[in-house]
Amino acid sequence: MTIHILNPNSLVHVTDGIARAVAAIAAASAVPIKCHTLAEGPPGIETQAHVDGVVTPLLLQAKGLEVDASAFIIACFSDPGLAALREQSRRPVLGIAEAAILTAMTLGQRFGIISILSKSIPRHMRYLGAMGVLDRLAGDLPLELGVQALADEDQTFARLVAVGRALRDTRGAEVVILGCAGMTAFRARLETELGICVVEPCQAAAAMAVGRVALARAQ
Amino acid sequence: MTIHILNPNSLVHVTDGIARAVAAIAAASAVPIKCHTLAEGPPGIETQAHVDGVVTPLLLQAKGLEVDASAFIIACFSDPGLAALREQSRRPVLGIAEAAILTAMTLGQRFGIISILSKSIPRHMRYLGAMGVLDRLAGDLPLELGVQALADEDQTFARLVAVGRALRDTRGAEVVILGCAGMTAFRARLETELGICVVEPCQAAAAMAVGRVALARAQ
Amino acid sequence: MTIHILNPNSLVHVTDGIARAVAAIAAASAVPIKCHTLAEGPPGIETQAHVDGVVTPLLLQAKGLEVDASAFIIACFSDPGLAALREQSRRPVLGIAEAAILTAMTLGQRFGIISILSKSIPRHMRYLGAMGVLDRLAGDLPLELGVQALADEDQTFARLVAVGRALRDTRGAEVVILGCAGMTAFRARLETELGICVVEPCQAAAAMAVGRVALARAQ
Amino acid sequence: MTIHILNPNSLVHVTDGIARAVAAIAAASAVPIKCHTLAEGPPGIETQAHVDGVVTPLLLQAKGLEVDASAFIIACFSDPGLAALREQSRRPVLGIAEAAILTAMTLGQRFGIISILSKSIPRHMRYLGAMGVLDRLAGDLPLELGVQALADEDQTFARLVAVGRALRDTRGAEVVILGCAGMTAFRARLETELGICVVEPCQAAAAMAVGRVALARAQ
Amino acid sequence: MTIHILNPNSLVHVTDGIARAVAAIAAASAVPIKCHTLAEGPPGIETQAHVDGVVTPLLLQAKGLEVDASAFIIACFSDPGLAALREQSRRPVLGIAEAAILTAMTLGQRFGIISILSKSIPRHMRYLGAMGVLDRLAGDLPLELGVQALADEDQTFARLVAVGRALRDTRGAEVVILGCAGMTAFRARLETELGICVVEPCQAAAAMAVGRVALARAQ
Amino acid sequence: MTIHILNPNSLVHVTDGIARAVAAIAAASAVPIKCHTLAEGPPGIETQAHVDGVVTPLLLQAKGLEVDASAFIIACFSDPGLAALREQSRRPVLGIAEAAILTAMTLGQRFGIISILSKSIPRHMRYLGAMGVLDRLAGDLPLELGVQALADEDQTFARLVAVGRALRDTRGAEVVILGCAGMTAFRARLETELGICVVEPCQAAAAMAVGRVALARAQ
Repeated sequence: MTIHILNPNSLVHVTDGIARAVAAIAAASAVPIKCHTLAEGPPGIETQAHVDGVVTPLLLQAKGLEVDASAFIIACFSDPGLAALREQSRRPVLGIAEAAILTAMTLGQRFGIISILSKSIPRHMRYLGAMGVLDRLAGDLPLELGVQALADEDQTFARLVAVGRALRDTRGAEVVILGCAGMTAFRARLETELGICVVEPCQAAAAMAVGRVALARAQ
Repeated sequence: MTIHILNPNSLVHVTDGIARAVAAIAAASAVPIKCHTLAEGPPGIETQAHVDGVVTPLLLQAKGLEVDASAFIIACFSDPGLAALREQSRRPVLGIAEAAILTAMTLGQRFGIISILSKSIPRHMRYLGAMGVLDRLAGDLPLELGVQALADEDQTFARLVAVGRALRDTRGAEVVILGCAGMTAFRARLETELGICVVEPCQAAAAMAVGRVALARAQ
Repeated sequence: MTIHILNPNSLVHVTDGIARAVAAIAAASAVPIKCHTLAEGPPGIETQAHVDGVVTPLLLQAKGLEVDASAFIIACFSDPGLAALREQSRRPVLGIAEAAILTAMTLGQRFGIISILSKSIPRHMRYLGAMGVLDRLAGDLPLELGVQALADEDQTFARLVAVGRALRDTRGAEVVILGCAGMTAFRARLETELGICVVEPCQAAAAMAVGRVALARAQ
Repeated sequence: MTIHILNPNSLVHVTDGIARAVAAIAAASAVPIKCHTLAEGPPGIETQAHVDGVVTPLLLQAKGLEVDASAFIIACFSDPGLAALREQSRRPVLGIAEAAILTAMTLGQRFGIISILSKSIPRHMRYLGAMGVLDRLAGDLPLELGVQALADEDQTFARLVAVGRALRDTRGAEVVILGCAGMTAFRARLETELGICVVEPCQAAAAMAVGRVALARAQ
Repeated sequence: MTIHILNPNSLVHVTDGIARAVAAIAAASAVPIKCHTLAEGPPGIETQAHVDGVVTPLLLQAKGLEVDASAFIIACFSDPGLAALREQSRRPVLGIAEAAILTAMTLGQRFGIISILSKSIPRHMRYLGAMGVLDRLAGDLPLELGVQALADEDQTFARLVAVGRALRDTRGAEVVILGCAGMTAFRARLETELGICVVEPCQAAAAMAVGRVALARAQ
Repeated sequence: MTIHILNPNSLVHVTDGIARAVAAIAAASAVPIKCHTLAEGPPGIETQAHVDGVVTPLLLQAKGLEVDASAFIIACFSDPGLAALREQSRRPVLGIAEAAILTAMTLGQRFGIISILSKSIPRHMRYLGAMGVLDRLAGDLPLELGVQALADEDQTFARLVAVGRALRDTRGAEVVILGCAGMTAFRARLETELGICVVEPCQAAAAMAVGRVALARAQ
């Protein structure tokens, strides 16, 4: 049996980054964790059309993996297809945004979210509303960095620190969520810099899945 | 210019029913209202996979209609692709669920929803949460009738009345929304029977679109 | 039949401004739109005493117009008498604040409100709470300009832009509502300046009323 | 100095009933409590038009009493004019509905409201929403008794017990509020019968006003 | 009979400060008000462990006072033991935080809280959530002053003014609550400086208790 | 390193029951799971005084276990001392109620809670309010069985089924939480009977802790 992590975009190096993010968790898991790239996905999930558009191929991919799946994780911060895959599969299904938020809810009373771009924030707000947890949100603030700017690690980290501090100091966040699957490398340093917990969503989901696999044995 | 109503399922007779539902409204509209069937859609939107799965062809269909569109209406009570089409199009875009709910909010303090099947209710709850209007919901109760049972009009109407009364009398609904695009024929009789407003979502959305077309002239 | 817009203050030039604001909408309406001044009203609705005080004469005025009314619109951003007129009349009754808010809810996930003075904000908060839509509010910020200062169009526009930017950039508003019946003239320029939708409440309500008149034909 | 209780209806016997309801509280008050009838008010506050319509004469009456007022209480469960009188007066101003609700919030986690007629419940819902306390509401259920039926004390008490039990047993109310200024006589018996606290709103407001008079001395 | 105010910390001079804070209220009370120090309490309630830890001795102390108690007040802004004492005692039991918040809800639509240190804010957020009144909160901002800094009255007052202005001007607070039992001496000056109501929680609770004692006579 | 489960009551057979409940999870855990009885605790946590009263000895017990703790679990459905232990410990700290609720939020849109006695429901409501997740609650209904009645397994199971069906059919629960640490033995049968997920809180927390131990390795 296997925990399958589904990266709904088509970039193999993103999938590889997710695999690195969860490698230490995989070492502590009773079952292997395997990461998959969605060949039919776009190179990045940037619009609501992308979010909705990947669901059909994602469901198909998951159907093929169902037989040996211990659990599924959808590895995009918009949790595309989460409700649909839960209807389709008999296995535990987690989304990295939902898992990060539920994890953050055990680490502080109000959480902040660091988004890449402001245009994804309305999507997050709809999702937090659907989850019914808006009272726990301190704020959701964007880095407002484009793809090229993100490639500059020093600049990206500087923005992460600036936005993290704003969430902590002016919005009252006690814990911060990285609102994207691709910022794992910064987590530990950012946590040290801010002095409050920083949740990386792929790791939060993988850890929760490890727990669910254990839970399934009890049931 | 035209108000385009997009039925995201593939059944022409459903599209025809929507056209009949909005015929009188079309007669009062400054622009024509045209109903479209989505050939690539499933014969009915019954699961979250259907909801998500129709978005890509729906967006493509809408792109082809953009040039002469005054407004778009997505004619399925799950409002598939609403956020995505709003990102894609420069025209007003309405969903029949959202339009029905906003209309009901002007007709009573708490609204009830009559769903076909209980399995769609969690989807509605997520949507009402995302809209941020759960405090206005009196209740969402199912007819719990399958396709064959629905074909029996007397039985269907009897259930509509029973569920409508439950919403009115035990949940405190002042107005009731028909939670499906296919119950137009019962609206007027049900309103008479219950003595409170009954909102048919295709009509609510078409009427709101007529208003938006007028609004665009002022801007 | 006629859509009657009731300006609950006594200033004819305000009524004339409303008429100009909705002129283009009236041109697209199946029925005429007629604006009325409330002779018994105060010269401006500035206090809660004004809001409550105009209801009795407003209801009387509306009663006289009922026979040929297609719909009523109460044209003050505090929606005075809205619930009362809904109890009295058999026609659709809309308030410009409610209509603006419901319209904004289709144009963005979180809306901002630009108020004239901070002292009206608590009144708005009570109203948004009664509507059950506080989760959709990005913020409500005042121009804090007195009557004389408002007469200076350049200064007023500069403040509108400053407050609109604050709502957009620091509060996360995707759409902005003009929280007063008298700022129509600035709408289009402000929308251009801010790059996000700006809702003028009289227009939003008139457009919605045009839709309701069409809806009534279907029912 | 005096605590002025303003009955916004024109029935002297209702005012007398309020005076009896608060007589024991008055005996424990540092200042006298005086009850007033609003001659210009309707014989009963039954519609939203009544609620809004009494505000102007009520404010005028209060203005005349301001000079020797320690505090004002508006004695109708719709709290007509509460926000307006707070703007006008420099004294503490309480409404019996608000005071009853705030008092109930110290007596149980969820409160129920017993309304006379179902048609006032939407008004209550708007008010609870404006107060931001809907999460504390267990339910609001009507006696659904007309004026004549109410005159039959045995029948009224039987209905109070039945509705109170429904709030307690099926809605989870830990405390019940009498949603009307005229049911004082039943409070103690109903509390005994239900075994949970029953709050009479005139008494709750008078008690809170006694506290505010004491508070004013500290400030 | 007596209103017993229970200071759950062990510092007699804090108890004396509370006694001074409520002295004028006591003079207007029908029963004496007596303040008690909890010998078993810590010198200050600074952590959640303190909040929970004082409950057992506090309940024991209250049990000994039950026989002549008119009402109990728990005089710490975390309201330690409030729910527990309500289960134990047959008398009215008030907490100073709850009383301050309910009082503030009659003085403005949104209230601000001035906390000593930011680390107590998550505790306040949990409490406001449990009370179901988060929609009424404008903000909760810290002085961020340690014990020594607080001893400097000029510096403390300057911070109170700065934080109060921030709550009023950038968060929209219409009324401010002093989020600690030890800032009574600044209340009146701060209210003058800010121009909006400032609620001192011990006084708010004592005043409410005076009302409850009067209410008990009516029941 | 060890996951320490702290049973805050003094009954060893309850601790043994918890150990059996999590045995299969322990077998899948990278670290051992050890259950502890709180000698200073009451024989059962039945009142708010019990909840608050166990915190001090619980914190002391946890302090002694800190050095080799991977994580702590507080095994009482009132989560006594959860916030306090989080302040004290540097390890992940979970409460079984919180963990059960967060787990249920991934299994259905609305969850129901089955409580032993109605008197604990207000405590749950305060807690759900503090967690900010009331919008996800379908209902909380009691078995209303005393200790002796609970000993009759057939009767207890019959009540579990009846209450579970009420939550599912009349309240709309998609998933049900056993609101007590002592009903593990019924979980699987109840899930089969109801046809929806049933969450046992000790298991949910243990599984989540297994995940957190894995997460810690990644960080």
